[in-house]
Amino acid sequence: MHKSRLAGFIIDCRTDDLQGAATFWSQALGMEMRVPAGAEGDNYVHLLEPEQRLHLEVQSVDHESRVHLDIEADDIEAEVKRLEKLGAKRVAKIHTWVVMQAPTGQKFCVVRPQTRDFAARATEWK
Amino acid sequence: MHKSRLAGFIIDCRTDDLQGAATFWSQALGMEMRVPAGAEGDNYVHLLEPEQRLHLEVQSVDHESRVHLDIEADDIEAEVKRLEKLGAKRVAKIHTWVVMQAPTGQKFCVVRPQTRDFAARATEWK
Repeated sequence: MHKSRLAGFIIDCRTDDLQGAATFWSQALGMEMRVPAGAEGDNYVHLLEPEQRLHLEVQSVDHESRVHLDIEADDIEAEVKRLEKLGAKRVAKIHTWVVMQAPTGQKFCVVRPQTRDFAARATEWK
Repeated sequence: MHKSRLAGFIIDCRTDDLQGAATFWSQALGMEMRVPAGAEGDNYVHLLEPEQRLHLEVQSVDHESRVHLDIEADDIEAEVKRLEKLGAKRVAKIHTWVVMQAPTGQKFCVVRPQTRDFAARATEWK
């Protein structure tokens, strides 16, 4: 048994100017920016909304700009297998997460739990 | 003065099988489906999560599959002008909403208020 849940959305921007990209999205969405500490800050800027409905980030990428969603899971391998049975395909393992592609074409990621109420809110799969 | 806010995300699927696409995303995200009444149900399926954090829909489209975000606003024209000043471009007006493109490349929509707590939670722009 494991649990998973929609963690949030990542705004992937093909840009060398992550700060400029994050500033646009921060102002467009009315959310404050927070640059993560350490090397993560080279590629990611978090967007904070007061209600913390979902995890939102702007990411600098080499591929074309897009938006992708993250599914958080307390057992990534079990979640990837569950999603494969639904028709998704495993694309790549990067650091701690797995990139997948939906049968409808969109790429998305399976990541470790990120939201504060994951344990209480996630769906338990049997 | 007007107000706006991130309303949610639309999972655009290039498919003739909207029901199949929505079924995948429903099961992947652990959310129930609700087919809107009337003609809207031909192109959209809502995904419901108990917490109603954001508005989520699966849409059948003719363009390539992607994920896009919606910004809800109580004055769409004022919001479009605000976003143009930030660097976004107006792409098309469709029914009641306006399609825009961010300076970072992603398409998104400015729509009428959709979330139940819009008035209390949206950012007021002066």
